[in-house]
Amino acid sequence: MKRVVVKMRKSATKLEVAQALRLMECRNLEARFVNHPDGCMVVAEGEVRDLSWLEDLAGVEEVVETKSAFPLASLDVRTTPTTVSLAPGVWIGGGEVAVIAGPCAVEDRDQILTTAESVKASGAKALRGGAYKPRTNPYSFQGLGSEGISLLEEARSLTGLPIVTEVMAPEDVEWLLPHVDVFQVGSRNMQNFSLLKTLGRVDKPVLLKRGMMATIDEWLQAAEYVLAGGNSNVILCERGIRCFEKRTRNVLDLSAVPLIKSLSHLPIVVDPSHGTGCRNLVPSMSLAAIAAGADGLIVEVHPNPEKALSDGDQSLTLSEFALLMEAVRQLASVLPGRAKEEVLCSSASVA
Amino acid sequence: MKRVVVKMRKSATKLEVAQALRLMECRNLEARFVNHPDGCMVVAEGEVRDLSWLEDLAGVEEVVETKSAFPLASLDVRTTPTTVSLAPGVWIGGGEVAVIAGPCAVEDRDQILTTAESVKASGAKALRGGAYKPRTNPYSFQGLGSEGISLLEEARSLTGLPIVTEVMAPEDVEWLLPHVDVFQVGSRNMQNFSLLKTLGRVDKPVLLKRGMMATIDEWLQAAEYVLAGGNSNVILCERGIRCFEKRTRNVLDLSAVPLIKSLSHLPIVVDPSHGTGCRNLVPSMSLAAIAAGADGLIVEVHPNPEKALSDGDQSLTLSEFALLMEAVRQLASVLPGRAKEEVLCSSASVA
Amino acid sequence: MKRVVVKMRKSATKLEVAQALRLMECRNLEARFVNHPDGCMVVAEGEVRDLSWLEDLAGVEEVVETKSAFPLASLDVRTTPTTVSLAPGVWIGGGEVAVIAGPCAVEDRDQILTTAESVKASGAKALRGGAYKPRTNPYSFQGLGSEGISLLEEARSLTGLPIVTEVMAPEDVEWLLPHVDVFQVGSRNMQNFSLLKTLGRVDKPVLLKRGMMATIDEWLQAAEYVLAGGNSNVILCERGIRCFEKRTRNVLDLSAVPLIKSLSHLPIVVDPSHGTGCRNLVPSMSLAAIAAGADGLIVEVHPNPEKALSDGDQSLTLSEFALLMEAVRQLASVLPGRAKEEVLCSSASVA
Amino acid sequence: MKRVVVKMRKSATKLEVAQALRLMECRNLEARFVNHPDGCMVVAEGEVRDLSWLEDLAGVEEVVETKSAFPLASLDVRTTPTTVSLAPGVWIGGGEVAVIAGPCAVEDRDQILTTAESVKASGAKALRGGAYKPRTNPYSFQGLGSEGISLLEEARSLTGLPIVTEVMAPEDVEWLLPHVDVFQVGSRNMQNFSLLKTLGRVDKPVLLKRGMMATIDEWLQAAEYVLAGGNSNVILCERGIRCFEKRTRNVLDLSAVPLIKSLSHLPIVVDPSHGTGCRNLVPSMSLAAIAAGADGLIVEVHPNPEKALSDGDQSLTLSEFALLMEAVRQLASVLPGRAKEEVLCSSASVA
Repeated sequence: MKRVVVKMRKSATKLEVAQALRLMECRNLEARFVNHPDGCMVVAEGEVRDLSWLEDLAGVEEVVETKSAFPLASLDVRTTPTTVSLAPGVWIGGGEVAVIAGPCAVEDRDQILTTAESVKASGAKALRGGAYKPRTNPYSFQGLGSEGISLLEEARSLTGLPIVTEVMAPEDVEWLLPHVDVFQVGSRNMQNFSLLKTLGRVDKPVLLKRGMMATIDEWLQAAEYVLAGGNSNVILCERGIRCFEKRTRNVLDLSAVPLIKSLSHLPIVVDPSHGTGCRNLVPSMSLAAIAAGADGLIVEVHPNPEKALSDGDQSLTLSEFALLMEAVRQLASVLPGRAKEEVLCSSASVA
Repeated sequence: MKRVVVKMRKSATKLEVAQALRLMECRNLEARFVNHPDGCMVVAEGEVRDLSWLEDLAGVEEVVETKSAFPLASLDVRTTPTTVSLAPGVWIGGGEVAVIAGPCAVEDRDQILTTAESVKASGAKALRGGAYKPRTNPYSFQGLGSEGISLLEEARSLTGLPIVTEVMAPEDVEWLLPHVDVFQVGSRNMQNFSLLKTLGRVDKPVLLKRGMMATIDEWLQAAEYVLAGGNSNVILCERGIRCFEKRTRNVLDLSAVPLIKSLSHLPIVVDPSHGTGCRNLVPSMSLAAIAAGADGLIVEVHPNPEKALSDGDQSLTLSEFALLMEAVRQLASVLPGRAKEEVLCSSASVA
Repeated sequence: MKRVVVKMRKSATKLEVAQALRLMECRNLEARFVNHPDGCMVVAEGEVRDLSWLEDLAGVEEVVETKSAFPLASLDVRTTPTTVSLAPGVWIGGGEVAVIAGPCAVEDRDQILTTAESVKASGAKALRGGAYKPRTNPYSFQGLGSEGISLLEEARSLTGLPIVTEVMAPEDVEWLLPHVDVFQVGSRNMQNFSLLKTLGRVDKPVLLKRGMMATIDEWLQAAEYVLAGGNSNVILCERGIRCFEKRTRNVLDLSAVPLIKSLSHLPIVVDPSHGTGCRNLVPSMSLAAIAAGADGLIVEVHPNPEKALSDGDQSLTLSEFALLMEAVRQLASVLPGRAKEEVLCSSASVA
Repeated sequence: MKRVVVKMRKSATKLEVAQALRLMECRNLEARFVNHPDGCMVVAEGEVRDLSWLEDLAGVEEVVETKSAFPLASLDVRTTPTTVSLAPGVWIGGGEVAVIAGPCAVEDRDQILTTAESVKASGAKALRGGAYKPRTNPYSFQGLGSEGISLLEEARSLTGLPIVTEVMAPEDVEWLLPHVDVFQVGSRNMQNFSLLKTLGRVDKPVLLKRGMMATIDEWLQAAEYVLAGGNSNVILCERGIRCFEKRTRNVLDLSAVPLIKSLSHLPIVVDPSHGTGCRNLVPSMSLAAIAAGADGLIVEVHPNPEKALSDGDQSLTLSEFALLMEAVRQLASVLPGRAKEEVLCSSASVA
């Protein structure tokens, strides 16, 4: 049983791709076409001894054999780090530190606009905010829904910040598509395969949170679902795993950062808010995440955390966030491999 | 902040129910109507001191104050154990031990029909089999889909066994509804709230597996999503939680059985196959589950486990299952609170 | 690198054993002499190709090659289940169900004598009670110490029940030796290797609790420390592992019971008191443990749990324990492989 | 039930301390004398309403009421960070970053001397090396014992580095006392209360590793055992907790660093070697630990990791360690609250 990735030439015609696919299927390889940003690819599996005939097919550039369970996400297929663009001039990956900030849930117009303006001024590159909230209890506040999306769009108009928001069901993807900049997949949905497949068919970035119970390998295979569908704009997000410790909401597994870097070309950001559940631990863990090599952070910020409808305990105030951003900038400037002068500055030009 | 469940009289008119709802909302109670099998109910929450006016509303039978996060699933609202009917003459709960058996995945016609006939002969009450499989890897066998459903229906025609099969996405519920007897929600989807809400609106039973990293309280709140939607036919299924031990796939948490019994009226079955991941541990853990008070088992059985496309290591052969059923019958006959003569016999009359 | 167990003949002289040891060391095998109940043995490891010369040594009966990390505890070296004698006529292992009962800690004369008489009357085979308590907090009650040991001895005189008590430090083993019948090693000390080595040199049984964080393999290797020292009277005790669930103190991993049976000849008992931390879960989990194949139980019982100095929440009252013993007897009588007529009756003749 | 810490004046006479103790006991307070570095203290517990009489006792400076389960380790009793001296001019805590480095186990003279000289040159402040090794398997290399201690002393003579080595049993403490500079308590012994009590009576620092399944509160209570014995030179060490992830040996819980800082005055170092089990993750996690606020690191270094008798996979080479130290220095220089010019330089003057 072998797994191969057949990379097609950029110049390959549709016919050549279709013929390659058919020939592989004829030889009992289970083949799957992927519209990868590096060019068309076919991921194939099966019982074959000799693979040289594949290299001879018209339009084929290279045949990569792989043992990886997540070939498209692995370094076997792409060796350079992926940079995901959130909006013109705003991207994640590639040496800079990007910070996404905002409230857990969009609660009202004033809350989201105030937060957006403030986090923008402090240096955030994108605005987070939930309109559809996955809540453990059916009677808890479930988010403002489409009204929340409209408020996020208003905040984007005001500040220029792209918006990151959670999508919970495959049937919501289509209508949300024109409104959001990044689809967030929450921890509880990391293995909602129906949702992942749907997001594989869109062209907007996906921020894929690690399941609270997921191993690194399961997480990368979840990402592979999106990549295999043809959407290679996946940003991984470590947000803590479940453990026995009771003082923190989760255990933030920062070793995931260098591990992901050693296994995959995908960028990874860290969520110290859910990762700890405690506001006073967020700054230290944010700095630790960046020192560990994270491509960015996603941080919960609220103008008045005591009155937040959800996650108040783990949200920073606007001024706490401003202080954090200063420390982040200072730290990022001395870390090896970070383009010092550019760090955190790309959104400045938007103002 | 108080939570109350307002039980309406069976004789209450639609108008009375609507008026009660409206009055609660006028007094700033967040109220939610539930079409409960014990009669219509309204679950309401809010800041009120005095609740006596609720009791005086037309059509109201009783007002139950509760601190439970899952009032409809709790013993506060219903004190007698719920019995869920799978098919005429086949039910789960109420003192008997019911066994659901079958392969992990429907693989072909011969496999599912052979298994169905054999487990029926051994005393199983229902047939399990996956047509849509949630697979960690996107390139793994994903199930036969609608073809698998047809084969399950053929097996039902042949044996009379109701069929239990997994549903993975809300958009599949509607078309599956006329074909399946029990909707299974898998461990990875326990907090797929969109799916749970959809299943709350159908009238077929839901077998809700515990998430591999879910607490008992999170599990019961997931059940509450289905109940709050109006579908009270929920069967809980303990299937092991994730842990550090490497010899077993999961740790089967049998204390969940008496715990659930002390917190809820819902029936609970145990899945020793996923709970251990090892065929040779299945019989002991099946007996242990029943001794702990489980209402039944769901067991993976395959005519040829070595050739199974998934979960072969944890599947019993047909003859191992027959032996297990004998031991289960013998054990169930001596346990307190089990109606000895009836145990496991209800399906006998179908033959 | 090979690991072998060299079994010496019962008739082998001391000289033959010494010569065998020396020759193995000459050939660069790291050899370790063990005074095993089945006869003298030498466990040896090293880089050798041919082992036939070992079989030709004077006094050697058999050479067993093994890949097990715990050869003496494994089924490679001993295929029949080990029965451990606690006192004349009282043993654990071998098909019967033996129950050890008593308070968490010995608190005063009245408490321990009352408990001992009552659990004896209900059918317990041994009395548990802590005189030296491992407490998380340095300011908590640490046990009565030597005074507690004297009270346990008085209880033994009164009832004939052998006593099981915890030893926490290697330096206590020697003075405790004439006073106790079974040394209990607590969960926190499962890998206190200094303690395990000391207990390997005594001839009293050791009840080795599984560490709250220990895998099955680590646990069996801890047992191997005792066996390799020459003491083969080890009883394993599953008492729950630490997990994320908050409703129970630990997760009682009953799959450990059939797993241990498939890997080792040592007997295993289950502690449902620490395993759950909740009195009302103890009866169900006791029955489940026995159905899973456990050789016995160790249960916390207190005349007045509300006033217990430790573990009151998980202790049964005297009458609850009497009811549990009835259910245990009934269950054990129908399980396969249990000698029905003898179950739980061996202590009856003492009365 | 109240818990108080009675601080005595520095000028208090022995008689005054003895009288205070006696009076507390007379009033049914359970009182315990502690020879604390801030002066003598009495920790007392009991049922009293009014505590003003305590303040009036001769020699009493202050009475602190506390709800903490670890009063001496808490910020209630001491608000300034504790600095622990390892040797003249070498300390842990107080704003600098101190790095302890060396092999898992002392293997031979050449290995330990080479390592000591090299890590000294790279800027390490202390040398680690195990002579008594806690090994899961009884047949594994158990360390060189007293010979290893002699080799460590030779390395100290050569380099001036104080030595940190593990002690596994209370009976070893006395003879090791004149030979070692810091007693390390391993993860498996974190709740070996007999060992902790013995170490409470010596005047050398104790490096207390977190148990692999210990909560923060259990860990601080283990430290309290040492403090309550009169030894306040405790250094905490986070070394990873056990979890389900299989790619790493443990999950390094860096949130422990800011959590400990918010709960205790004791210094905390981080062990990224055991915390990850993978050499290539050690540098990133070292930097992350320091960014999180750790007072130092303890890192495994070996001249030839491939040939190491234990933990080779997680040991850095000498040159990898040198590179790490450069990065550590650079990072520490920009972090807030670090005395930049002094960072990592205290040992330079020894050369």
